[in-house]
This record gives sequence, structure tokens and C-alpha cells, in this order.
Amino acid sequence: MTHLARAAAPKKPLPEELATALATLFEDRFSTAEAMREHHGRDESSYDPMLPDAVVFAHTTEEVAEVVKLCSHHGIPIIPYGTGTSLEGHVLALRGGITIDLSQMNQVLAVHAEDQTATVQAGVTRKQLNQEIKDTGLFFPIDPGADASLGGMAATRASGTNAVRYGTMRENTLALTVVTADGRVIKTGTRARKSSAGYDLTRIFVGSEGTLGIITEVTVRLYPQPEAVSAAVCSFPSTADAVNTVIQTIQMGVPIARVEFLDESCVRSINAHDKLNLPVKPLLLFEFHGSEHGVKEHAQVVQDIAAEHSASGFEWATRPEDRSRLWAARHNAYFAMLQMRPGGRAITTDCCVPISRLAECILDTQADCEKNGMIYSILGHVGDGNFHVLMMIDPHDPAEVAKAEGINARMVARAIAMDGTCTGEHGVGMHKMDFLVQEHGVEAIRTMRTLKHAFDPKNIMNPGKILHE
Amino acid sequence: MTHLARAAAPKKPLPEELATALATLFEDRFSTAEAMREHHGRDESSYDPMLPDAVVFAHTTEEVAEVVKLCSHHGIPIIPYGTGTSLEGHVLALRGGITIDLSQMNQVLAVHAEDQTATVQAGVTRKQLNQEIKDTGLFFPIDPGADASLGGMAATRASGTNAVRYGTMRENTLALTVVTADGRVIKTGTRARKSSAGYDLTRIFVGSEGTLGIITEVTVRLYPQPEAVSAAVCSFPSTADAVNTVIQTIQMGVPIARVEFLDESCVRSINAHDKLNLPVKPLLLFEFHGSEHGVKEHAQVVQDIAAEHSASGFEWATRPEDRSRLWAARHNAYFAMLQMRPGGRAITTDCCVPISRLAECILDTQADCEKNGMIYSILGHVGDGNFHVLMMIDPHDPAEVAKAEGINARMVARAIAMDGTCTGEHGVGMHKMDFLVQEHGVEAIRTMRTLKHAFDPKNIMNPGKILHE
Repeated sequence: MTHLARAAAPKKPLPEELATALATLFEDRFSTAEAMREHHGRDESSYDPMLPDAVVFAHTTEEVAEVVKLCSHHGIPIIPYGTGTSLEGHVLALRGGITIDLSQMNQVLAVHAEDQTATVQAGVTRKQLNQEIKDTGLFFPIDPGADASLGGMAATRASGTNAVRYGTMRENTLALTVVTADGRVIKTGTRARKSSAGYDLTRIFVGSEGTLGIITEVTVRLYPQPEAVSAAVCSFPSTADAVNTVIQTIQMGVPIARVEFLDESCVRSINAHDKLNLPVKPLLLFEFHGSEHGVKEHAQVVQDIAAEHSASGFEWATRPEDRSRLWAARHNAYFAMLQMRPGGRAITTDCCVPISRLAECILDTQADCEKNGMIYSILGHVGDGNFHVLMMIDPHDPAEVAKAEGINARMVARAIAMDGTCTGEHGVGMHKMDFLVQEHGVEAIRTMRTLKHAFDPKNIMNPGKILHE
Repeated sequence: MTHLARAAAPKKPLPEELATALATLFEDRFSTAEAMREHHGRDESSYDPMLPDAVVFAHTTEEVAEVVKLCSHHGIPIIPYGTGTSLEGHVLALRGGITIDLSQMNQVLAVHAEDQTATVQAGVTRKQLNQEIKDTGLFFPIDPGADASLGGMAATRASGTNAVRYGTMRENTLALTVVTADGRVIKTGTRARKSSAGYDLTRIFVGSEGTLGIITEVTVRLYPQPEAVSAAVCSFPSTADAVNTVIQTIQMGVPIARVEFLDESCVRSINAHDKLNLPVKPLLLFEFHGSEHGVKEHAQVVQDIAAEHSASGFEWATRPEDRSRLWAARHNAYFAMLQMRPGGRAITTDCCVPISRLAECILDTQADCEKNGMIYSILGHVGDGNFHVLMMIDPHDPAEVAKAEGINARMVARAIAMDGTCTGEHGVGMHKMDFLVQEHGVEAIRTMRTLKHAFDPKNIMNPGKILHE
């Protein structure tokens, strides 16, 4: 792909001494097999794979520290890898090096139900955590769709459908264990809900995408399972009507737990993929958490707002199995949409704007896609002002790739002009580095660079991501 | 005071050239008058004043940048000053230098009611902001008691009574304008509610106490004024009963807006100071925000929990004037308690622990105070696991000071052993630097030091705070 020209930068070959040391330490958890490297050199983005020179599977923080020390000694890049579900090329081995696969660090280390916190190894996935705590009456709300690892979710500052009510990984990470670029082990916080004790190391590493250190343990907040949950879908004659319903809901302060927008083509895709019968129109999918009465009250307010915006077919899903089916469909949307163009590849992107600008931003982006004859879909966690565009392209057609990237660039410029951000939750990876400068300005980028150089002076931590080298 | 020995470190005299440059630029907004320096060399802590060499009153970010550039050139310390209400010696001029008073930077720059955000200059106080937005139907919830400036609140990661529901400055600061140690101006974020766009510069500066840069503008989240508000007080036979009521309330996930604990001596003080007639027993002060029905529902749940813990005298304050009176009394508690020992001085401290350990931590601290015959009071934002101890001492009696500091040190050690923090909201300043090491460990402190050196290589930004030099 044309926008991957920078991948051609030189790689340093893997020193024999390093390979031997890692092989001795990790035995069959060290691999240079092509298939293994291939598997770890890709994510869910449209990028062609870029392979690391070797993969190690770590089991403990101490093992990660050992790998980092060895790589630091040899000046070899290190890329942490969780479930490989990132969307912007985060885990691709742009400069080769060692990928540390953390998926076998999958122990839930402590659940403090009485304090509503859990501490897990970085490889524990959100579904695994929720499974392991389900008898405590608590749950972990952050839900980016994919069954991502908590380490990866912290590293990309993930959020997803529940963020409008419960916040993102930024708000819900209490503490991390991190291996620094020189192989030291630090703990960035405590289990106290708030603290003014010094620099916020936790939030320096949350969202740093493996470029400042490697997250090996995560302490997160948990929440009581709501007494009552209710979900609803309704359809709108236009995107504007749907989005304006959301804007008004948020402005009124209704504490919805989730509100998802799906455009027509997205609805069509999930109907086909999940054998549903939703009206093929712009759709909102709501969820309410609270007491029996509270949920009814909030749902009524939202239903009234939706009615003012010509909503139709309001349907309630109060039975857990109906709700699960709807949310499963929402979560399958990505894979459902891939069917829009068999053999094609998806370029996905996201942005986030202040809520009052959301309709304008979505409508302009929609118009841009239409004008360019793109096969696309727009959907999003609209309660936060966050939406996604998925464009199905032929990766072998440079003109089509360029067209999609043009739409992406204009969407980002639009979001930034509205005082929004170039990515609400996907992260920067390799795909949004140029936009980062556009959003923050050269002086703030210089300050980010100061941080990167101070924390990773040898530039071995996931190099070539977030900031241009 | 004995624990101020480090203040004896050498100061660099103010270079004539710098004084002249500042006098020329700021005219009558530059002062070296003793009274002015005296006023700016103290906060609400028990420390004796430490005077800066001069004070300037800035009006714009550009003026702040100008001062920083000049000070950087001469290697002279700079201390940002808001309202002087910090509690741990944050604004004391330990190494002399220039205090930049930001209180005249008091413009509300933008209110985006439709997005629930406001951008203000750093000197705007929380009460001023709430006054200026009161017709929008929105409010800014963070309330540390004092009418602090938003710049200062961001710099100390302030929180206060509403944090249990609305979060702290960490969660509610969307973006900052910051003057870096070399006099550049950066913007750390946008008005988007969430973002994964690069390093979290906002949260690097939130809580950095002026040691990494100077915050000159703050963009915060606002919230819809609740449809219904209700407050209640009730008394308990023991501290344990009161605190256990809170623990159970939080564990059940009741969305209380505020819950404050006041011990007997605190109740006695505010009765006298505010002419109230509260029963002199451990007391909880609750506030609920929501719909009419929601507020009633939550209040009933809490009343039931309190009853299980032998609460008595449940009294509702539904009229705004009754609520205001109660909360005014709570906010006056600090000044009320100063009357416990006329001529004495207060040593205040705070810590924060996971909620399940709160009763134990408070009771042990209480016992320690009693054993040492201290005149003291314990109160706190207990919903977060955060409490304060105020000890009235004779500042001229080193033995008494040492006794109070011993109680403080043991309280902090207790909190840290419970996986809590040495300060929930007051910050580190000069008073908690040793505890910071105890809490985070030497390796994490080394990482904090790396950050400080990278962002402030000349060590001119509020030197001698947070980290030992």
C-alpha cells in the first residue's frame, strides 16, 4: 500500500547472541518460525504484515524485564502483543525486532470485590475477566467490541460502547505494573480511587501504545451489576434525526449506559450476518442501567426525544437473551461489514468531536463518502461524540486506497476544526501520526517527543508508532 | 518548625538584569515589596512563610511565557500562585525566585453549554465559574472547599465533596494551555470527551504542582444541574457505624453525589462556628442528585443502610437554603476547627484507601491521636475512601510538632499498607515528599525524576516540591 512507504526504513538484523540468549531463557516459548512471525506481524488494520525477527511468550513481569534488558543491550526493537485486534498498525514490526506475546500472562491476580477492583496480568481479556468475576455481582464495563486483552486496552486507551456511562481505560485504570525501556519494574499507582501523590505515571502509560514501556499488570475499577437493564432499538428517517436524538439526550444529562448509531448499510450488513430483521434505516441502539424505576424513567425520556425526531419502530429488549442478540450483532458489525465487498479489505478510522458538532461531522463525512462512490459504513459510540467509518477497498488499487485515505484525512481535519480529536479510541499506531501533529501542533508534539526520548532514549520500544522517528 | 530544615538550602540572589526586565514589562504589576512577597510566600499549611524575591501579576499566557523565558535565561525559580489555599506548602518560595500570581487571569474564555464544557483562564475560581454559568442550567461540580482557582485545582489534582459522583480534576479536565519550562506555549488536548491521540499531556500536568510547567488555561467538563437535589444528616453512636454505613452504600453502587463524615469534635466546632444544633456525635452528611423519584429511591436505600448501623436523627434538607446552610457549615469546618485551640496552628493531612479498609484506617488513626493527647478532628470525603486529619498544635513547641508529624507518618504508612495513597487530594508539596517514595518505591520515583528532568532540565519550575532535589 502506498502509504506504507516508510516501512522500507532499514532494519537491524537480529544479533546471534540475543537470539541464543532468548532461546536459552524461553526454550519452546521462543520462535523464529515464519508462521509465528507472520501471525504477530499483523493486526486488524489494512496494513500488509511486517514481521518481527522473533516472538517470545512471556509468563511473568520478570521475564518481560529480562527480554527488555537483553534487547536494550543490543539496541533491538521490542513490540508488546496482546490479542492483535488493534486497528491502526500498532503491533506491526516496522523495524523488525522481538515481539513479546503477553497472551499467556492470563492470570487474574486479585479480585477485591469489596473495593470493586481487580488486578490482572496484561494478557487477561475483558471477557475472561467478566467471566471470572461474574459471581461477585460486579462487572468490568469497558467494551471495545473485540475481546481484547486488558494490557492492550490500557496501552491504546480503549473505550467502546459503555464509555458514555462508565468512562474509558483512562478513567478506569487505577494502577499498572510497567517494565521500563531499561528493564526496570515500576508500579504506577495504588488501589485508592483517587490520589494526588505525584506525577500521574498511570496515565502516562495508558494510551502510550507500547512506546514508553510494557504494561504487564493492570488494576481496574469494577462496577456493581445494575439492578435493571433494558435495551431498545429504534429507526429514523435520516441520519440527522438519529444523531440529533443522541445530542439532545446527552445535553439533557440522561445517564444512558450505551447509545450506538448504525447507518443503513451497517444495518443491512448485520441483518444478513446475524439473521436479524431490523428496518434498513439509520438506527439507534440504547441501553439503560439502573434501578427498575430509574431505567423506565430514563427510557421514557429518551423515547420522547426520539419521537420528536420521527423515530419509528421503538422496540424493547428486556429479556437478557434478546439484549445479548442485539449487542452480539452490534459487535459483529465489523465482520458483517467485511461482507459488503468480498475479497476487499477494510480501512477503518475513527474520530471524536464535541457532541454539538456530531451531526454535522457525520453528515459531511457521509457526503464525502457518497461523492467518492465509496463502499462504506458509519457507526459509532455517539453518546461520546465518537464515530467510526469503515471503507471497503481493493488493496491492490492504489487509486482506491488514496481515495479512502483522502476521505479519512478530510474527516480528521473536520473533527480537528470542530475542536475534536483525530482518534477517539483506536489510537495512533502508524496510521494517524501525521494527524497527531495537525491536532496538537508542533510545540505539543515537541513535548511528547521530549517524553519519548526521556523514557526510551534508545528508541527500542515499539519504534515508529505515535511519533515519527 | 523542625521539619523545615531543608528550607535553609542556598538561594540565588535575584539578578539585577532580570528585575529590571520584569519591572519594565510589568510596571506596577511587578513588586518586590515585603508585604507583597510575604503574602505570596505562604499558603494554608502550617509552614512559616518563605518569600519569593519578587511577584508579578500576569494577564495573559504570553506574559507568563515571557516571564518563564527570562527566568530560564537567568536560572531563577518560578512559582505559580492562584489563591494561596493549598495545604502542603506548594507555593512557598523554597529557593526564592519569582512568584507569578495568576489571580488576575480571571476571564471565562468560552462556555459551550451545548457541549457541557468551559474554558477559563487559570485564575478563575470555581465559584466565579459557577456564578457565570448559572443561567445555562449547567454547573461545575469539583469542590475542594476553598474557593480555589481552576489553575491551582488542576495543578494539585483537586477533588472534594462531589468527587464520589463526578470525579476529580483528573477526570474533568479536558485540555490545558501550559507554558513549558523553556517558555513555549502548548495546548494539551481538545474539547472531545475522549481521545486516544498520543501521550496524555493533560494528565501529565494535572497534579504536577507547577513543577513541570505553568497552567494558564483550563478546559473543564460541566454537568446538567440535577432535576432534584436532596440532602440529609444523621448521627451515629460510633465512628465505626458511620463509616460502615458509607462502605455499604458504596459497595451497593448507590450513586450518591456527596457523603461527608464529621467526627464529634468537628461537629462541636461547626455547631459553635455556624450556630447549628447538630447532635455532638459522629455524623454523615449526604447529598443525592437525580430525578425526583431517583433521589427519593437512593435516599431510602441509604436511610435503610444507616438504620442497620444504628443511625439516629435522620433529617432531610430539601429546601435549598437548608442545604446551603449545612454545606456552608461543612465548608467552614476548617476555620471552625481552628477555634479548637486559639493561638494554635493546624497541621492538616489527608490520605485515601480502598473503601473496605476505611473504617480500620480511620479508627486506628483516631486511636493514635487519642493516645498522644492530640487536639484533633477527623472528617472526610468518605465515599472515595478519603479522609482528613486536622491537628491543632503549638508551632513553638517542637515536641508537639514532632508528635503531630509522627501521627501523620503513621497514618500514611497505614494507608500505604492498605494499598492506599499518602494523599487523596491535598497533593505532595513539601510535606509529603518522603511519603511519595514510600508509596511508589524507588524505581517509580526514578521514573518521575526522569520526567521532571526532561521537562524542566534547569530545575526552575517550583523547585523542591514533589521530589527531593
